[in-house]
Amino acid sequence: MTYSIGIDFGTGSGRVFLVNTENGEIVAQYIKNYTHGTIEGNLNGRKIPQNFSLQNANDYMEVIELGVPAILAESQVNVEEVVGMGIDFTSSTVIFVDENMEPMHNKPHFHDNPHAYVKLWKHHGAQEEADALLNTALEEKNRWLGYYGFNVSSEWMIPKIMEVHHKAPEVMAETAYIMEAGDWIVNRLTDKNVRSNCGLGFKAFWEASTGFHYDLFDKVNSDLSEIVRNKLDAPIVNIGESVGQVSATMAEQLGLSPETQVSPFIIDAHASLLGIGAEKDKEMTMVMGTSTCHLMLNKAQHKVPGISGSVKGAIIPDLYAYEAGQSAVGDLFEYVAKQAPYDYVQAAESRGISIFDLLNEKAGKLYPGESGLIALDWHNGNRSVLSDSNLKGSLFGMTLQTKHEEIYRAYIEATAFGTKMIMQQYQGWQMDVENVFACGGIPKKNGLLMEIYANVLNKQVTIIDSEYAPAIGAAILGAICGKAHPDFNTAIAAMKEPVLYQVTPDPEQVAIYKKLFSAYKELHDLHGYKKARIMRNVSALM
Amino acid sequence: MTYSIGIDFGTGSGRVFLVNTENGEIVAQYIKNYTHGTIEGNLNGRKIPQNFSLQNANDYMEVIELGVPAILAESQVNVEEVVGMGIDFTSSTVIFVDENMEPMHNKPHFHDNPHAYVKLWKHHGAQEEADALLNTALEEKNRWLGYYGFNVSSEWMIPKIMEVHHKAPEVMAETAYIMEAGDWIVNRLTDKNVRSNCGLGFKAFWEASTGFHYDLFDKVNSDLSEIVRNKLDAPIVNIGESVGQVSATMAEQLGLSPETQVSPFIIDAHASLLGIGAEKDKEMTMVMGTSTCHLMLNKAQHKVPGISGSVKGAIIPDLYAYEAGQSAVGDLFEYVAKQAPYDYVQAAESRGISIFDLLNEKAGKLYPGESGLIALDWHNGNRSVLSDSNLKGSLFGMTLQTKHEEIYRAYIEATAFGTKMIMQQYQGWQMDVENVFACGGIPKKNGLLMEIYANVLNKQVTIIDSEYAPAIGAAILGAICGKAHPDFNTAIAAMKEPVLYQVTPDPEQVAIYKKLFSAYKELHDLHGYKKARIMRNVSALM
Repeated sequence: MTYSIGIDFGTGSGRVFLVNTENGEIVAQYIKNYTHGTIEGNLNGRKIPQNFSLQNANDYMEVIELGVPAILAESQVNVEEVVGMGIDFTSSTVIFVDENMEPMHNKPHFHDNPHAYVKLWKHHGAQEEADALLNTALEEKNRWLGYYGFNVSSEWMIPKIMEVHHKAPEVMAETAYIMEAGDWIVNRLTDKNVRSNCGLGFKAFWEASTGFHYDLFDKVNSDLSEIVRNKLDAPIVNIGESVGQVSATMAEQLGLSPETQVSPFIIDAHASLLGIGAEKDKEMTMVMGTSTCHLMLNKAQHKVPGISGSVKGAIIPDLYAYEAGQSAVGDLFEYVAKQAPYDYVQAAESRGISIFDLLNEKAGKLYPGESGLIALDWHNGNRSVLSDSNLKGSLFGMTLQTKHEEIYRAYIEATAFGTKMIMQQYQGWQMDVENVFACGGIPKKNGLLMEIYANVLNKQVTIIDSEYAPAIGAAILGAICGKAHPDFNTAIAAMKEPVLYQVTPDPEQVAIYKKLFSAYKELHDLHGYKKARIMRNVSALM
Repeated sequence: MTYSIGIDFGTGSGRVFLVNTENGEIVAQYIKNYTHGTIEGNLNGRKIPQNFSLQNANDYMEVIELGVPAILAESQVNVEEVVGMGIDFTSSTVIFVDENMEPMHNKPHFHDNPHAYVKLWKHHGAQEEADALLNTALEEKNRWLGYYGFNVSSEWMIPKIMEVHHKAPEVMAETAYIMEAGDWIVNRLTDKNVRSNCGLGFKAFWEASTGFHYDLFDKVNSDLSEIVRNKLDAPIVNIGESVGQVSATMAEQLGLSPETQVSPFIIDAHASLLGIGAEKDKEMTMVMGTSTCHLMLNKAQHKVPGISGSVKGAIIPDLYAYEAGQSAVGDLFEYVAKQAPYDYVQAAESRGISIFDLLNEKAGKLYPGESGLIALDWHNGNRSVLSDSNLKGSLFGMTLQTKHEEIYRAYIEATAFGTKMIMQQYQGWQMDVENVFACGGIPKKNGLLMEIYANVLNKQVTIIDSEYAPAIGAAILGAICGKAHPDFNTAIAAMKEPVLYQVTPDPEQVAIYKKLFSAYKELHDLHGYKKARIMRNVSALM
């Protein structure tokens, strides 16, 4: 019997799982909310900008230092049988450290400096820097931008580095290394200063064949190349390889065998794909939470417009990993639920059900097209395929009789139409979609939503129990490093999460949704491309 | 000292006013809700279609029979000094009567037949008939349709007549006369079977120079011309003329002098225009309630697309009266208020204020353009200038932070933009707008709304206390018939309602609203004309 440890660093908490490598059984688990949580609004009592989202790196180490001993103690396994560890992390979550790998925010003189803290993936302080990068890249018609969907997000690594360079040169001056938080955790475990191809490939304009794109960096800012060369560039370890053994110090501290192999970190959504077993090409995986991430694997590299990232071997060796996304999904439904009229909230309360239960019940009784509504789900911009974070949401077809559940359903349908746009974009670039997988927080609890997706996409949708998928994915990487399995396929087959349920399209509803989708697509093109300037002029007044 | 009686037949109640002709003072008043109210949903316990809206004509007579003696008794005036009476009525409110002027619904065998009852202005059972009329007229490129804004509404008289012909031939067979309810009331008072030029001109395809358009009627339905010729056509009395004295029987019953002159009936919104004193050309009057009516007077007759009606002398002799409209104004704000989220309703309740007070307070703190929202206010179709009752509402520019008061304000702005479209349409057809008047239920109680209108229209807006404007307008017509004044101008100057307040545009906000309006206009044209088919295809699924 062998075991692997999967450690999942999410947005609000860390989870440490001990997993049986033969059958994927979770033998023991430890979950901890980060002690300092997400630092937003103020830092140590001082106001910080609304779009800042920071964390304290000590919280991550706390998860490991408390979690690993806890699961070993609870399970009572022979530590020699714990052959590997895998780490998944939100990304791009960026940390600035000194030559001893000590985070800048641990230095007393930087205690109140927000730029010394971890910049969480959803930190949006670097929009100007992202725009500057994009504009330079577009001017140059830079060949590699196509692999990032012709887009630069403020959530990526290079804009965040530039932000610190601009706004806090004093922090940058004392920074020896800039790392994805996942790479930093791997360093703490192994003492090796290496980088995962997954993180740099998706978030830092790095490619296996050419390395960093210094030619672009030079044009953006004369200091950027030097910063990247000195503080970010480091030996790469690919997903599927091992970084090496856990360090002797850490093995002792955590109670692990010093033989335990450590995998390079993988981005959390990508780990999910391993955890649910959607590891082949022609399989599109939707990781659905506050936003949705649409992952595809393919043997070839295509420049697909509006698709962010195509990184070789970032999830499965030899396959290119593609990532697209919708910026507002669960967030949008939360917003609609929060806007529910008074009598809806009262009705839900008096029946002891949630407002979502009530809305799903009412919306489930509607037939496609019955409300006459179509929505554009751009309330948080459009990530794919329009790649325009300035776009805004719209709702068409309202009357004085329009009901809140009709609006709710229209938004569900809009996110399904948005997913269909992405699926068609993949298909238009020679990537067939034969199977659609859904995982994440939403699919498990919202059957109506999955029905609508199946009918809009006209695909059977397989919903996977994915509460633990990122951690299982990380554990699968640990198992592979630790040689518990000879290859990815056997590891995944043995350890992946079970299927929860499947939804098959209903031909009648598929036919109606085809008509509705063509209206959606017309509105999408009208307001997304040609006529977007109408609302841009209005936005400029905000 | 002389007096005039103004009787205002509204949607839910009738009001009888005794007015001093020298100064417009209301000496006595009597108000009565109709005994049978508005008959919707069911008639005598039997379900009737959702879009039916009926009344019982006996209720109107009750208002007169109780109201006139009541005001005479209360005021103790010398009845010889009551020189005239004027009637205003909602329109087109249609009544079917026998040769004795007895309403069909008073016949026992028609007691449960909805088509024997008064069809109230907002009865929408004749959409098919309206469509048939419009299509025939458009096929023929009929020259007169231009004077009705190239539109036929199911609220007008001819569609309602056709509806009874189609759906209840047994009622039509026993019908001797078909009348505007206002004309019927005038008949009950005077025993004369005459018709007002105001009612037929706006609602029945009649023109002073040519009479009814029998050439069109012949093409729509072979029976229609005969029905109109036999049951509707009758001598016309123009606004400003007198129908004659009150009949001896009625004079005795009501306690009036038999010398009292009776004016032909005037449509209620048009009476308002007299009551508030907006009787000149270059003055646009907005009568704002659940919907808004935009009235203009002009010396010339223009075929203005999207403007319903241009009738000579319908309000002021020799001036053409033009009418345009927005279908959802107060109704739209009611809808938005009803959709307010739970915490808004709670906050309003805990402060003891209405949800409108709360929304106005919050929306009033916003600056134009701040929300980034633009709405199309077509939740009940678009009456002017698109004349398309199938259009639906839209909302553009939403984010996950969009607040309910921002939506509320966007809808107020949208109705102001819609009014600007109408104003520009008038201006585009050689009708200058120098002054804008606002009356009706909304302007008095919503200063924020009036501010927004002033800034959007870039016009000073004069708000008139118009609670009694229709009744005062009717009393003015009574005073003119009764020779209390030599002409309209002096009568109006003496009797009109007072100015409540005026709002002057703020140049800074005017400049922003110019930008917002150009975005509105682009969206209006995009979704109203060229691209309307997108949402029409969706509507077809409803």
